[in-house]
Amino acid sequence: MHIQNAWYVAAMSSEVAEKPLGRTICNHNLVMYRGKGDAIACIEDFCPHRGAAMSLGFVEEGELVCGYHGLRMGPDGQTISMPKQRTDRFPCTRSFPVMEKYGFIWVWPGDKAQADESKLPKFHWAENEGWAYGGGLYHIKCDYRLMIDNLMDLTHETYVHSTSIGQKEIDEAPVKTRMEGDQVITERFMPEVKAPPFWQMAMAFQGLDPNATVDRWQICRFNAPSHIMIDVGVALAGNGGIDAPIEKRASSVVVDFITPETDSTMHYFWGMARNFQPEDAQLTDKIREGQGGIFTEDLEVLEAQQRNLDRYPDRDLLKLDIDAGGVQARRMIERAIETEQESTLC
Amino acid sequence: MHIQNAWYVAAMSSEVAEKPLGRTICNHNLVMYRGKGDAIACIEDFCPHRGAAMSLGFVEEGELVCGYHGLRMGPDGQTISMPKQRTDRFPCTRSFPVMEKYGFIWVWPGDKAQADESKLPKFHWAENEGWAYGGGLYHIKCDYRLMIDNLMDLTHETYVHSTSIGQKEIDEAPVKTRMEGDQVITERFMPEVKAPPFWQMAMAFQGLDPNATVDRWQICRFNAPSHIMIDVGVALAGNGGIDAPIEKRASSVVVDFITPETDSTMHYFWGMARNFQPEDAQLTDKIREGQGGIFTEDLEVLEAQQRNLDRYPDRDLLKLDIDAGGVQARRMIERAIETEQESTLC
Amino acid sequence: MHIQNAWYVAAMSSEVAEKPLGRTICNHNLVMYRGKGDAIACIEDFCPHRGAAMSLGFVEEGELVCGYHGLRMGPDGQTISMPKQRTDRFPCTRSFPVMEKYGFIWVWPGDKAQADESKLPKFHWAENEGWAYGGGLYHIKCDYRLMIDNLMDLTHETYVHSTSIGQKEIDEAPVKTRMEGDQVITERFMPEVKAPPFWQMAMAFQGLDPNATVDRWQICRFNAPSHIMIDVGVALAGNGGIDAPIEKRASSVVVDFITPETDSTMHYFWGMARNFQPEDAQLTDKIREGQGGIFTEDLEVLEAQQRNLDRYPDRDLLKLDIDAGGVQARRMIERAIETEQESTLC
Repeated sequence: MHIQNAWYVAAMSSEVAEKPLGRTICNHNLVMYRGKGDAIACIEDFCPHRGAAMSLGFVEEGELVCGYHGLRMGPDGQTISMPKQRTDRFPCTRSFPVMEKYGFIWVWPGDKAQADESKLPKFHWAENEGWAYGGGLYHIKCDYRLMIDNLMDLTHETYVHSTSIGQKEIDEAPVKTRMEGDQVITERFMPEVKAPPFWQMAMAFQGLDPNATVDRWQICRFNAPSHIMIDVGVALAGNGGIDAPIEKRASSVVVDFITPETDSTMHYFWGMARNFQPEDAQLTDKIREGQGGIFTEDLEVLEAQQRNLDRYPDRDLLKLDIDAGGVQARRMIERAIETEQESTLC
Repeated sequence: MHIQNAWYVAAMSSEVAEKPLGRTICNHNLVMYRGKGDAIACIEDFCPHRGAAMSLGFVEEGELVCGYHGLRMGPDGQTISMPKQRTDRFPCTRSFPVMEKYGFIWVWPGDKAQADESKLPKFHWAENEGWAYGGGLYHIKCDYRLMIDNLMDLTHETYVHSTSIGQKEIDEAPVKTRMEGDQVITERFMPEVKAPPFWQMAMAFQGLDPNATVDRWQICRFNAPSHIMIDVGVALAGNGGIDAPIEKRASSVVVDFITPETDSTMHYFWGMARNFQPEDAQLTDKIREGQGGIFTEDLEVLEAQQRNLDRYPDRDLLKLDIDAGGVQARRMIERAIETEQESTLC
Repeated sequence: MHIQNAWYVAAMSSEVAEKPLGRTICNHNLVMYRGKGDAIACIEDFCPHRGAAMSLGFVEEGELVCGYHGLRMGPDGQTISMPKQRTDRFPCTRSFPVMEKYGFIWVWPGDKAQADESKLPKFHWAENEGWAYGGGLYHIKCDYRLMIDNLMDLTHETYVHSTSIGQKEIDEAPVKTRMEGDQVITERFMPEVKAPPFWQMAMAFQGLDPNATVDRWQICRFNAPSHIMIDVGVALAGNGGIDAPIEKRASSVVVDFITPETDSTMHYFWGMARNFQPEDAQLTDKIREGQGGIFTEDLEVLEAQQRNLDRYPDRDLLKLDIDAGGVQARRMIERAIETEQESTLC
């Protein structure tokens, strides 16, 4: 089950250029394309004529043209024209509220009347010249909530990412979970440790001694429907950790947009936003490459976990303190779904 | 649902040589092979001994030998012999009426008593020295009726085959559909147009100026169960179109044998018959290659359409004038199936 | 259905080294690993914390560590520890009786109380310096009983393995099946024949004239749950066949451990034990390579047979004299399963 009345990341802006893009989001089969004035549009990927996939068509003069028999579709799902046909009584195709912001295309799968730009999350690092962002997209065959669990319990870094960002001290530091407004926050602080390889690299990039003792932090913030922003970093020990002056730390925000494809598959838009050397495009590429490699390590684990859960659907899993972030996030999702269903009944 | 009492193309003659060929036709799992005197035979692909696939066996002295334990099968589905066994009480394997004609192997999946060579369609271009034929076979994951729709509405050429045989004027010319005996005919005439790339090539081959203004025609003829012959061509403008003298036109017959494999997959035997330079084997190859490339463009479209229809099985599709050929052909199929079922009930 | 209370070969010893091995045996998803002192251990491949696959983890100081969040598991399925957690009330993971013997890892999927080393089969060729063994593992998409049928009726060698071990005389020699204690034996003797290619190679290796007339034998021995040992060989004609002095024969034991993976897939541990030149590792490799090639010829046949049986589940197959070995073996399996089920009801 997914929250319907929410903005989900459906694509990176760069994915929708001249050609339309077909993608399934929350079980809806969508086509996204750039219409008049490059405005993004999103309708169901189904031609009302014979059911062809509109995503195999093309855009001409801002109109989406079916690649089978030339039906022209508007962004509202109304057929504009079709060669030698009267189209005014053609059935309407469902259109979806869609927006482009922060380098992403956001789709609202639920009730149109409730879609509102003001409900789009705000990110301090986005549209800010002092920050740079790089990221990518992975398709994963698991329930999107397994990825929420994964990111709200970074204990797994010690094991899954042992050669890059994992270190034994993550295990040993206590983890705390709390609600703050509509946000679930799980945080962990590791004072006076050695930086793991990924952070050593980042320290070196910033002119810090990679072997210096550091204070390390991880602050995971979950917001519905399924976005997780993680403040991560290291600072030279004793300088206030996340509050240390920028020249004494290496830090960034791990950006995770987790979008259900179907009930058992998901799109994972991962990335990193940083406020050091934001103009250095090569550094952006290097970080993307490194992060992309690290994040592939989760795929096999999550897909195998999903197969196990499918096999034993009735087994209870443990809910330990380290799982509290995922547990709270799932509860928030369940409550939102219940609220949606109740309002539908009224 | 498929018509059972009809001849379907099950293979190209060249596909069945020394080795038996296993193939599913209208949900029947068949093995075809050349028996005594190279006579084609067709039985169910199931050895009565232990259920092995007879198609993995071999032919020896005109007998199909099971590749597992050596059972020898006759073309009537009766076991001939098995090493050291009495086989007279072995169960009979189902055999199917089969014929070889026009370079194809034709199978009759229905009632044997009704199978009759005289019911095989006749083709004026076949077994005629003035004509040459070349073609191929594609396996497509869609209901065979989607291919009928496709070929009875050539409007799609403008979009799917825009770089070869498509041209804007197809859209603009009115299309007419009519019944003529047991044939559904959909035709379209485009006077005074420029030839599209494929026809320019054909004109050049025949010594015509590829840039000349031409009259173009497309006459699609559907016959049950699922054969479509399309008269296509261009003639120098004002010379009578399809009736123009041969030196003023480039024309051919697009040959489509559409054979259901299962309810949701099909075999597409496509080809082209021409009456110019029939002795030129290199030209046959060149046309086959060009046509094969063009016809692959349909595959992705049809398979995506099928997935869409599977997803929304209850949605009504439009039935426009351009769809009339497919609609009529489907009705003819439905009526034939109903007639078969009624006669089975008697 | 599979016998549960029996030792099945689950892996070759060499497959379980430093990394744990995940494998499904009789529908149980298992992980095997080497614990303290390299002792083999086998538990369900499911971490009690969040359902991760333990087989993706690692072994440290003899403890299996979950690769997701570091839970440490003992060979009895009891959690030993987890970073910063009290684990004494964690649910127990199912462990399976497991043994290592003869170069294989044996697992008992059924009732632990009945698992007993004394029930492990004994093999005269194993752990014997006068014998050498080489073999491999194939995964096959068929009911394991089709492989039992296959190996208890070597008539198929004439057809499936016509270029290596097959010969026409197999067909022509009568086959006899009998019970001997808890063993089903099917045997065939072919006096005064030419050796087929594989055996000619073996004769040459032993300094015998490959073109000499030989007496050939095949004695297939089935034991529950699904092991088949086959005495095979050729001896210079008139020297007593299998009883001929070793310098006048080439012989060996074909070793087949047939382990169900699921109801419709299986693991096939195949190999050959020989008592000539046992110290010659190159010869072992050469025989393994030859046998491996021959045994792949069965895969396509069995998988196609399985698809046919799935398609026509209600069809009766023939049970000829050549099938008696398979029929008796299947009956033995059925009786054992019935006995298990009755004892469970008490």
